[in-house]
Amino acid sequence: MCRWIAYRGDTIPLCHYVTEPAHSLVSQSIQALESTAGTNGDGFGLGWYDHQPEPGLYREIRPAWSDENLRYLCRHLRSHLFFAHVRAATGTPITRQNCHPFAGSGWLFMHNGFVGGWPRLRRRIEALIPDELFPSRVGTTDSEALFLAILGAGIDDPVAATGRVLSQVSSMVDEVKQPFRFTAALANGHDLYAFRYSINDAANSLYYRESSEEILVVSEPIDRDHSRWITVPDNSVLIARHGTKARLREVPVLRLSAA
Amino acid sequence: MCRWIAYRGDTIPLCHYVTEPAHSLVSQSIQALESTAGTNGDGFGLGWYDHQPEPGLYREIRPAWSDENLRYLCRHLRSHLFFAHVRAATGTPITRQNCHPFAGSGWLFMHNGFVGGWPRLRRRIEALIPDELFPSRVGTTDSEALFLAILGAGIDDPVAATGRVLSQVSSMVDEVKQPFRFTAALANGHDLYAFRYSINDAANSLYYRESSEEILVVSEPIDRDHSRWITVPDNSVLIARHGTKARLREVPVLRLSAA
Amino acid sequence: MCRWIAYRGDTIPLCHYVTEPAHSLVSQSIQALESTAGTNGDGFGLGWYDHQPEPGLYREIRPAWSDENLRYLCRHLRSHLFFAHVRAATGTPITRQNCHPFAGSGWLFMHNGFVGGWPRLRRRIEALIPDELFPSRVGTTDSEALFLAILGAGIDDPVAATGRVLSQVSSMVDEVKQPFRFTAALANGHDLYAFRYSINDAANSLYYRESSEEILVVSEPIDRDHSRWITVPDNSVLIARHGTKARLREVPVLRLSAA
Amino acid sequence: MCRWIAYRGDTIPLCHYVTEPAHSLVSQSIQALESTAGTNGDGFGLGWYDHQPEPGLYREIRPAWSDENLRYLCRHLRSHLFFAHVRAATGTPITRQNCHPFAGSGWLFMHNGFVGGWPRLRRRIEALIPDELFPSRVGTTDSEALFLAILGAGIDDPVAATGRVLSQVSSMVDEVKQPFRFTAALANGHDLYAFRYSINDAANSLYYRESSEEILVVSEPIDRDHSRWITVPDNSVLIARHGTKARLREVPVLRLSAA
Repeated sequence: MCRWIAYRGDTIPLCHYVTEPAHSLVSQSIQALESTAGTNGDGFGLGWYDHQPEPGLYREIRPAWSDENLRYLCRHLRSHLFFAHVRAATGTPITRQNCHPFAGSGWLFMHNGFVGGWPRLRRRIEALIPDELFPSRVGTTDSEALFLAILGAGIDDPVAATGRVLSQVSSMVDEVKQPFRFTAALANGHDLYAFRYSINDAANSLYYRESSEEILVVSEPIDRDHSRWITVPDNSVLIARHGTKARLREVPVLRLSAA
Repeated sequence: MCRWIAYRGDTIPLCHYVTEPAHSLVSQSIQALESTAGTNGDGFGLGWYDHQPEPGLYREIRPAWSDENLRYLCRHLRSHLFFAHVRAATGTPITRQNCHPFAGSGWLFMHNGFVGGWPRLRRRIEALIPDELFPSRVGTTDSEALFLAILGAGIDDPVAATGRVLSQVSSMVDEVKQPFRFTAALANGHDLYAFRYSINDAANSLYYRESSEEILVVSEPIDRDHSRWITVPDNSVLIARHGTKARLREVPVLRLSAA
Repeated sequence: MCRWIAYRGDTIPLCHYVTEPAHSLVSQSIQALESTAGTNGDGFGLGWYDHQPEPGLYREIRPAWSDENLRYLCRHLRSHLFFAHVRAATGTPITRQNCHPFAGSGWLFMHNGFVGGWPRLRRRIEALIPDELFPSRVGTTDSEALFLAILGAGIDDPVAATGRVLSQVSSMVDEVKQPFRFTAALANGHDLYAFRYSINDAANSLYYRESSEEILVVSEPIDRDHSRWITVPDNSVLIARHGTKARLREVPVLRLSAA
Repeated sequence: MCRWIAYRGDTIPLCHYVTEPAHSLVSQSIQALESTAGTNGDGFGLGWYDHQPEPGLYREIRPAWSDENLRYLCRHLRSHLFFAHVRAATGTPITRQNCHPFAGSGWLFMHNGFVGGWPRLRRRIEALIPDELFPSRVGTTDSEALFLAILGAGIDDPVAATGRVLSQVSSMVDEVKQPFRFTAALANGHDLYAFRYSINDAANSLYYRESSEEILVVSEPIDRDHSRWITVPDNSVLIARHGTKARLREVPVLRLSAA
């Protein structure tokens, strides 16, 4: 079911949050505490913004806990906004293209959750991706399809675009009486958005903490001091725009099928 | 552009043709002679029939020339009908799911060639795959899509089914003024079919040799004695049904757009 | 710390014991019950005897639980004597050459345990490998070094050879006040030996069950019915020679340093 | 036989020389022009210095030409001194630990060449590595052994240390009548050394070019304009210390066995 962290703040080496904390994301890859999957060993990925217009990506199919390259990169890469993700696959193959984060149009996206009934709904969900973005579909996950659909749904307003796609997908899973979990992060190098949403099922865990220098959003706390972490409520989006304090609002999902 | 071999005959260890000949398929992975791509190092695969109803598959993203597992498997696996393939990618990612052969419904398929304009035509070609086979689409290549379309086009008559799909795809590439090369093998454990077809381009090389005990079809000869090999003519299919001598016939393509 | 199984008996597909049981070795790769390491995701391997004089090997650095090739091979490979191993690394790199089993001189070997103080003792233990076997040292584990030392210590009597090497290594770890765990299997295509030994530490778990048709030795039971399994006692070797009932004897270790 | 480049100068993204030139190192991975091995597809590596005291490393067993991570890292990593290497293995396994560059004690090292008779000489050459550095021997190549021997031979004077090790190894290969090729680079974050040496064989190609801003040393020119490149003569070391113009001197090898 995956675990992830998203950071925005001062420029720091990625190791600060990916490898060094007591219950770092790399520790969670071998033993997560709040995840359906105790082991998140089906690949991992880093996405980061720096001096280049497009974010960098490093994705690998090996477990994060034994990857020497990851250790080096986390010490040497510095960023003011980065994503890191460890994967527990829910049916799609272990390939780099199926590892998170995904990058496109200057945006990064990563996801923890699943679309219930994916094999049956895949065609309909892939149909949400506009033609001009379809060549960017290089993997086969539900997550990448959701990202490309969101990019195509008016990414200038990322909360509205995500709401539109979640509305459509919620309606589809309702039809086939399946669950849908979507705990995801989206960023463009400046602004960071984190969604915690589900229908027909419990939502996956999501926490954040914020200071004047930085905001950190995590699937589960990376240290033992849980009092420092705020739970993102169900069906909420955390909006952390550059230069403003983070705020929570409801995910704007229109339940088409609820009528 | 890939190189491949297909064998049917007495049960033999795969090494006889995959690793041992002077210009074996594994040698061709590092230096092919008749291929657009001199190096075929973008993964490889084996598919074989034995005592099980479904064929076995071993696919790997490393180059064939350095894979220790391949050496062991070729000595220890025995089969009366097997495929082996070394890949030179034409744009799609290097994943096991994008390596050949592909297996489904008891059939094996492998391909050397490409659909020109694939990023533009992909949706239309994927639409040829029937819903019930779409969950088997685990990779992203044009080759796998063609195979699933052929499976769905009436595989009981594999030449007709392939002809139908080639007709449809030929019409699509004509529309977008692109080439299409299809040099491919198809088998069901008893019967072996090998196609050499192209439009708007030269066809990829294909040869075979036949004895009373066996038939071997290859992208290029695996030894220096070229006199032993018969060229499969352009736009032909070699039909090697169990218990009968191989014969050649024209690929039954209806050029819809030629009107 | 690894988990493994060793089988000798009628010729069967490997899936019978590697992938199909409720708590199969592949299940143990993601969640072992009696191992120090709950997750054994640092690579895996198969070794098997068949019609060839030398055993086959398939070793891979990915976790066993997600390897499609392993599933196919376990259904298609048949053997009368095979080893399967899932690895939890204890410091040496994740490479195929460091995955078990190891093959040499017609023998297979696999190990669960470790030599305490390996970085300090490595040179002395590697010095136990005779010159003529040293080119076979293709990895960097303590396990492979122990195997090559045993091969060089008179493998015609494998229990005595192993006893000799364990005596020497026990003396070395005593010197540096380190533990040593050695739960290992050794086979030559006919005879199967399984050791459970440790000094300065508890021994890793080992069980077996035997019928008229077969013997199966496992790190932990592969089903829920623990009453069917016999514990191999500490410091014992299970000797299962071809055509005779298995018997237990003490591992013939001479504690040189105990004086 | 490998190809490599070494750069020191202004801080630049690695893509400038690793991926962008017409005959870049990545192009050489699939088709080198002056190498015994036309294909250098047996893994690759990057080593770079930045704000951290120790260099970064990224090594991978896949061919460089198809690695998406390499493309991203070359655009996003910036360095004033970096190494890049594409490997053509000469007998040792394809593992990350056997890929170049190697890092230790703040130094980077990479090698193109081989020690003839390595399986016979390996023990004697590994014996040149001091005990305190032996735990750093995580791979099995001749190259890594040479590097650790050089580190142990007085790395404060890297030319003398290298000369000492080359003298010893030259004497060993003379004894067993084998060739030895050593075209290698060594750096500490400030100073760059490039050796071109061989005995009983021709030396591998090596070129450099220098401007007021930078020095680039390459196995073969990365562009078509060969007039810009100076050949490093046989048995020479190029010494490019920080803040001084590069100069050539003879490799200080004492041929012990020549007497």
